[in-house]
Parts: sequence; C-alpha cells; structure tokens
Amino acid sequence: MGSSKMKKSIEVILSPALLKNYELKGKTVVIIDILRATTSICVAFQTGVKKIVPVSTPEESMMFRDFDFLCAAERNAQKVDGFDLGNSPFEYQNPLLKDASIAMTTTNGTKAIKLSKESGAAKIVIGAFLNLQALSDYLIKDNNDVVLLCAGWKDKTNLEDTLYAGAVVKNIKEHFEINCDSALMAETIYQVAENKLEEVVLQSSHAKRFSLLHGNFDDVKFCVQINTLDIIPIMVGEYLVKMNQQ
Amino acid sequence: MGSSKMKKSIEVILSPALLKNYELKGKTVVIIDILRATTSICVAFQTGVKKIVPVSTPEESMMFRDFDFLCAAERNAQKVDGFDLGNSPFEYQNPLLKDASIAMTTTNGTKAIKLSKESGAAKIVIGAFLNLQALSDYLIKDNNDVVLLCAGWKDKTNLEDTLYAGAVVKNIKEHFEINCDSALMAETIYQVAENKLEEVVLQSSHAKRFSLLHGNFDDVKFCVQINTLDIIPIMVGEYLVKMNQQ
Repeated sequence: MGSSKMKKSIEVILSPALLKNYELKGKTVVIIDILRATTSICVAFQTGVKKIVPVSTPEESMMFRDFDFLCAAERNAQKVDGFDLGNSPFEYQNPLLKDASIAMTTTNGTKAIKLSKESGAAKIVIGAFLNLQALSDYLIKDNNDVVLLCAGWKDKTNLEDTLYAGAVVKNIKEHFEINCDSALMAETIYQVAENKLEEVVLQSSHAKRFSLLHGNFDDVKFCVQINTLDIIPIMVGEYLVKMNQQ
Repeated sequence: MGSSKMKKSIEVILSPALLKNYELKGKTVVIIDILRATTSICVAFQTGVKKIVPVSTPEESMMFRDFDFLCAAERNAQKVDGFDLGNSPFEYQNPLLKDASIAMTTTNGTKAIKLSKESGAAKIVIGAFLNLQALSDYLIKDNNDVVLLCAGWKDKTNLEDTLYAGAVVKNIKEHFEINCDSALMAETIYQVAENKLEEVVLQSSHAKRFSLLHGNFDDVKFCVQINTLDIIPIMVGEYLVKMNQQ
C-alpha cells in the first residue's frame, strides 16, 4: 500500500462503563489501573512470579488455593482478611514469590481485564508508569489498533489512569491516527502534569482515599515512578504472563 | 453552624453512560451539549420561544404538532427530513419563533435531560458557553450541590462538553468542595484551552464530523462564543422555560 497505508488508530476509554461503545475485536487493549493493580502486576513479574490468573471475586480467588496458587484479594483499597496478598506493590517485591502462581481479584483492575477478554480483544497487555517506555515501544511495533482502557474507580473516571493514558498517547501518537476526544484530553492533562506527576497524583481522589486508610502515601509514590521496569505482562489464555520481548 | 458549614459539592459526569454511578437526588444538574443542543436552546429563549419539551424520538416530537408545537429533530448532526427545525443555533434565531412552543429531540442533549429527570435531579438547567457567566452566578447563589452532566456523543466522552464543564468549575470552585477527579481533569483541560477555545474545539471529533457533513464550521464557531446571553433555561415540569432571574 505504500504511503496510502492507513495509520493504526489509538483510542482511550476513560471507564469500563464506557466499554460497550467501543469495538475491541482485533485490537490490542492496554489495561490501566495505576493505583495499584497494574503496577503490582508489573512488579510481580519483575520479582519472578510465573503467572497470574485474574478472577472476579475473593471467593473465586480462594478456590485456586487447592491448585497451589497464592490468593490475592483487594476490595476498597484494602487487603481482604485471610488472603495471602492484597494489592500493594511492596507485597509483590517479596522474593518468596519467585515462580509462584497467583489468583488475583481487585476492585477495578481485574474487572477491566475480564471485560476486555469478553469483548474480544486480540491482545491484552498491562500498563503502569513503571513500564511506560517498554509498553510504548511494543505498541509502536505491534500491528494492531490500540485501546487504552482506564480501570477507574467503581466505574467512575479517575485522574491517575487518565494521566497514564495521556503519557502513552504522547509517546506513540506520531505512529498512530487519533480520532478520539478522550485521547486528546488525556494527553493534554498529562502534558500539564508531566513535570510534577507525583504532586498531581497526590491530589487524586484515590490518593486521598488511600492516605485516609493507610496513613501514608507510600504506595502512591511508588506507583508514579516512570520507566523502572522493562517488563510487559500479557494475557495468554486465562493467565497473565511475562511477555518474551526480543 | 458558622464556619463549620459544609461547602456544596461539585461533580462532573463525562458521559450519560456514567450517570448510574452518581446520586442526582436533591442536586442541581447542568446539561451540557455544546455542539449544539444546549447552545440552540439558549438561543431559542433569547429569540422569545415560550417553552421547549425535550422528547426521546422524532416520532414523539411529531406527535406534538397536533398541539400547536413546532417539531425539532436532529440525528447524527443533521435535521431529520420533514421537521420544522433541526439543531442549528442559527435556526433558533428566526424571529418567527417568538412565543412558539417546540418539541425537540436530539442525538445526545435531550437524552441527557430525560435521564437527569428520571434520576431525580432537584433542578435541571441548561449550560452553554453563551450563558457561562449567568449560569455560574446562578450555581453560586443556588443552595444545591451541583452536577455538570456532559451529553457527549453516543455515550462517548467529548472534548467540547468537557471543556465547558471545566469552564464552570473554574468559575465557581472557590464556593464549592471538589472531590471528583473528572472535575479536576475538566478544569485542567479548560485552562490549557481557554485562550484558544475556538482553535481547540475545531480539533474535536464532532467539529470534524460537522464540517464533513455541512462543509463549514459556522455552527461550531457560533457555539464557542462566551457570555453573549444572560439567559438560563430551566426544566419546570415537562418543559424547559426561561428562568426568571432577579
């Protein structure tokens, strides 16, 4: 096709509640739940976790214990009682997790993964500020149109996921066609925040919620670190695994 | 209560598809459909239209013809064949509309009005750049919490409605408490666009759509004029009427 070849498209979905208005078939969907699920998933694979199965409920997570999975469950920004793991990236740095399999459910992130799978996404990958550049490079090389799906908070839009979507748009836009107002808006917000990212994210409703519950912003500060990991988690069948990057 | 009195809250809903996650009861809801329904409604009352009934379908609009209503119907940015009026603000400047009653259906705006009514909003008012200051002043004086509802485009978020929500947030925020990431994001986007509003809105997907259909940006340019009208349309029973402002 030469110069007439269509550019790939990029779209941003600001909440899973808006998913039904978009076509995901044949596209690569990036799941974004910066505070904290997709950040923790990236950390888990850095630590050496073998696979993660995203599930809908704490009960479903617990059923995997019989199959030698560790069970992770978070609801309303707190670990559910009786589970091995919650949703803090620091928990997923534990060296004992090397080679572990984990069944994980979180308030927003694992729901977004499952919805994308049900909607027929061709590929589902995991985005966090920690792997921003690695993921951006992958999306440019990949042949598919891209959808950036913000997990939000209980179907509401949120600041930190939108900021991350904007960061990806900024990184890759020259290789894509954008006909999506949400993508333009996300990029604008990121450009304003780029040089004071931690300060801006600390004003988000979830950062405030986290601080009220935990008495600190430690997890929030961890989750806004940029390009500390070269890892891309990807769904293969029912499991998230670490992508083999060339 | 003195200084301990709670400030009123302000929330921004970026698409009608997100409405179910918010409580509207007891609140004043501002309907925002800049291109073009809420702009045209403001113009209609400036011209002297007596009342407007928002309806769901062209068929429903047409049924009002037997009761001496003019019938307005827009779908996909175009007037529906056979109707008296479409959705262009220029049509609503026609002096023959003085004292008219209009039954109106549009792709997004009238749907947002009806959803807000069904959700129990205490008051429903109409926002456009044309009446930005008049509306902002009213929201500050009013006793209710405020919800700014962007009509969007077929349940997707859009740029121009988000920009307007941000303009209202900027105008009134010192009188309100904000615990809503969408409000923070909308205000950020507006601050970036404020001094080049027309240029930014011309990049929106709806401006492009309009231009493809109509061959010009005339309506779009009309709709980004700021503070040209001192009129606030408000729902009273089944009708939009011009608010009596003191």
